[in-house]
Amino acid sequence: MLETIDHGPVRELRLARPPVNALDTGLIAALRAAIAGAPGTGARALVLSGRPGMFSAGLDVPYLLNLDRAGMTAAWEDFYGLMEALATSSIPIAAAITGHSPAGGAVLAIFCDYRVMAEGDFRIGLNEVEVGIPMPPVIHGAMTRQVGARQAERLLVGGLMIPAAEALAIRLVDELAPLEQVVERALDFCRRLLSLPPLAMGFTRRLARGDLACLFEKRRELELDTLIDAWFSDETQGAMRALLARLAEKRG
Amino acid sequence: MLETIDHGPVRELRLARPPVNALDTGLIAALRAAIAGAPGTGARALVLSGRPGMFSAGLDVPYLLNLDRAGMTAAWEDFYGLMEALATSSIPIAAAITGHSPAGGAVLAIFCDYRVMAEGDFRIGLNEVEVGIPMPPVIHGAMTRQVGARQAERLLVGGLMIPAAEALAIRLVDELAPLEQVVERALDFCRRLLSLPPLAMGFTRRLARGDLACLFEKRRELELDTLIDAWFSDETQGAMRALLARLAEKRG
Amino acid sequence: MLETIDHGPVRELRLARPPVNALDTGLIAALRAAIAGAPGTGARALVLSGRPGMFSAGLDVPYLLNLDRAGMTAAWEDFYGLMEALATSSIPIAAAITGHSPAGGAVLAIFCDYRVMAEGDFRIGLNEVEVGIPMPPVIHGAMTRQVGARQAERLLVGGLMIPAAEALAIRLVDELAPLEQVVERALDFCRRLLSLPPLAMGFTRRLARGDLACLFEKRRELELDTLIDAWFSDETQGAMRALLARLAEKRG
Repeated sequence: MLETIDHGPVRELRLARPPVNALDTGLIAALRAAIAGAPGTGARALVLSGRPGMFSAGLDVPYLLNLDRAGMTAAWEDFYGLMEALATSSIPIAAAITGHSPAGGAVLAIFCDYRVMAEGDFRIGLNEVEVGIPMPPVIHGAMTRQVGARQAERLLVGGLMIPAAEALAIRLVDELAPLEQVVERALDFCRRLLSLPPLAMGFTRRLARGDLACLFEKRRELELDTLIDAWFSDETQGAMRALLARLAEKRG
Repeated sequence: MLETIDHGPVRELRLARPPVNALDTGLIAALRAAIAGAPGTGARALVLSGRPGMFSAGLDVPYLLNLDRAGMTAAWEDFYGLMEALATSSIPIAAAITGHSPAGGAVLAIFCDYRVMAEGDFRIGLNEVEVGIPMPPVIHGAMTRQVGARQAERLLVGGLMIPAAEALAIRLVDELAPLEQVVERALDFCRRLLSLPPLAMGFTRRLARGDLACLFEKRRELELDTLIDAWFSDETQGAMRALLARLAEKRG
Repeated sequence: MLETIDHGPVRELRLARPPVNALDTGLIAALRAAIAGAPGTGARALVLSGRPGMFSAGLDVPYLLNLDRAGMTAAWEDFYGLMEALATSSIPIAAAITGHSPAGGAVLAIFCDYRVMAEGDFRIGLNEVEVGIPMPPVIHGAMTRQVGARQAERLLVGGLMIPAAEALAIRLVDELAPLEQVVERALDFCRRLLSLPPLAMGFTRRLARGDLACLFEKRRELELDTLIDAWFSDETQGAMRALLARLAEKRG
C-alpha cells in the first residue's frame, strides 16, 4: 500500500492503496514508520506522492465507521502521530499532489515543506465540516500558518474544496505543474535544498518550522476526546453515512 | 434607524439612519441589541446591510463632538460592546457592504464572518488617523487577523481608504458583487453555512474565530482612557472640526 | 560612505560605499548613528537609498572574514543594533531600493516602514543560507511579519533571491517604480505620513509596529553565540570563501 522509490538521496513514498489511497490504520502506520525511519536508512529528503488523479481521499470513512471507541481513539492517535512525523521530520518533505486531495489528503500536504499540485480539474480542501467532523485544532493551526487566519476561517468553517488554481492563488499550494511532472518538480525542490550548506539550511528550517512543531506540544488527550465524542454523535455518524450513500449512488 | 427583514432563517439587519447611516449612541445600541438578541428570536444567521451607495459612514462625529467626557466614555464603551457582539456572535454574520464603508463602517465589517462588497467606485478603509483618532488596539488586532501584520500597518498608519477592487486583492473583503446583488450574495453565504452539519460547523467556527473573541478578553479601561484622552486633545478636536468644515463646504 | 540629503523635513540617507555598498563595521556604525540621531537634528522622516542598480550587497564578507571572534561578535552586535534602530525609530523610514538587494540589503528594507523597489531586472532576497549563514531569529521574525509564516519559510530555508515583480506579488516590497523615481516615491510616502495628525499617526504607528520592536526584547546573547559559532564553522567559512572565489572569477 506504500511504494518506496529512491531517486538518489531523495526517497519517494508513493501511496498505493486502491482505489483512492484512503487512509486506514494500516496505511497511516506504514506512512508514519516510513517517514520516521527515512533519515536512518539513507534518505536525505522525501517526496510524498499519490496516484495520477488522486493524491489521497483522506481518512477511510467506511473502514473507520466499523471501529468502536477504543479503535477510533487509536486511529486518531496514529493520525496525530503521522501529522507530527511530517511536521517535525529532520529531513525536508515535498508533497507531490498528483490529483484530488480532500480532507486527510490535504492535511498531509500542509504539514510538508512544499506542495506541488497537478494543474487542471483537481480540487483540494479540508472539507471535514461537510461530513460532520469538527476541525482538529492542530490542523487549524497548520492551515492558519499556511494561508493566514482569515483564509483558514473561510476554508475550514465552510468545508470548502477549491480548484488547484485558487489553491495556488491563496498559497494553499506552492506550485502547479502538469500532472506528469508533479513528482519531478517535487524532487527538484528537494534536490535544491540538498545543494545548500546543510547546517545553515537545517538550522533555518528548524527555525522557520518551529511554529508547526509547537502545535504538537500541547497535551492532545483533550483534543482527541472532543474529536471522538463528536465522531460517535448522531450528527457525525449521520453525515458520514449520507456521504457514503451519495458516493455509492454515484458509482452506480 | 434599523430595519429587520427575515429571509427564512437568515435575518437581515439593515442600517437605515439617513443620510449616511452614521453611528450615534442610539444606532450603536439598537444594532448591538439586535445582534445579541437574534439567536433567541429565531434567527440562525445575520446579514448586516446598508443603503445603496453607503454601507455606513462610521461614527457620527458631529453628534459625538457635543458629548462631554462621561458621554464619550459611554459611547466608546457601547461601540466596544457592539464590536464584541459581532466578534462573539453564536450565529454567523455576513456584511453586505452596499457602498462606501469608511472608519466605523469598515470596523463593523471586519468583525463579521464574511464580507461581500459592491463592485465599482466605492471605497473602504480605516481612516481614523486622518481625523486624528488613534487606532483602538482591538481594531488593529482584527485588521491584522484579516489582512496580515504588514498590510494592517500600511492601511492603519496611513489612514487609507482603498477601492473595492484593491480591498478584494488584499482580502480586506471576501467577494465583490454588483450593488443590487450584494445582499443576496451575503444571504447565500449564510445559507451555505446553515446547510452544513451544525455541531461540526459551530465547533470549527468557534475555533477559527477564537483569536477574534480573545481580543476582547483584555481589560479595556486602559484602552478606553487612551482613546478618550486623545478624543479631547486639541489635535483630534481640530482634525474632526476641519473634516466637518470640508464636508459642509462640499455639500453646498 | 553615507551621504545625507535633506528634502525639507525628510532626510535621505544614501549608502555610498563603492563599489556595492557592502556593510562593514564603519558603514553599519555610521548608518546606526544617523538613524538614531535623525529625530534630534530636525528630520521628521527618513529615506534610506542606495546607488542606481545596487541598494546594498549586504554584509561585507571579505572584510568580515578577517575578523577574529571578538571582532565578529562586535560586528554582529552592531548589526543587531542597526536593525533595532530601524525597527524602533520614532520617525517613519522608507527604503528606496534602487537595485539589487541581497542578504543584509534586504534585511535593512524589511525593518523599515515602507519599501519602494526599482522595477526591472533586479533581485531581492535573504540568501544567507546559500553562503552558510544560519538565519538570525530576529530576521526570521521580521520576514514572517512581512510575508507570513509560509512565505518566510520558503524564502529563508531556500535562500531565495526573487525578481522585483515577485517581491511585489508576495508583498516583500510595497511598490515598484522606475529606477529614477524610486527615491521620489519613497519621499512621497514619508510626506504623506507627515501630512496626517501627528499624535494619532504616531500612536497608531507604534501600535502597528509593536510586534517588530518586540523582536528585540529577547536577550540576544544566545542568538549571537549561535551565529558566531556557525560563522567560524568549516561549513560557513567554506561556503563564504567559495562565494568570494565565484565573484572574483565573474569579475574577470
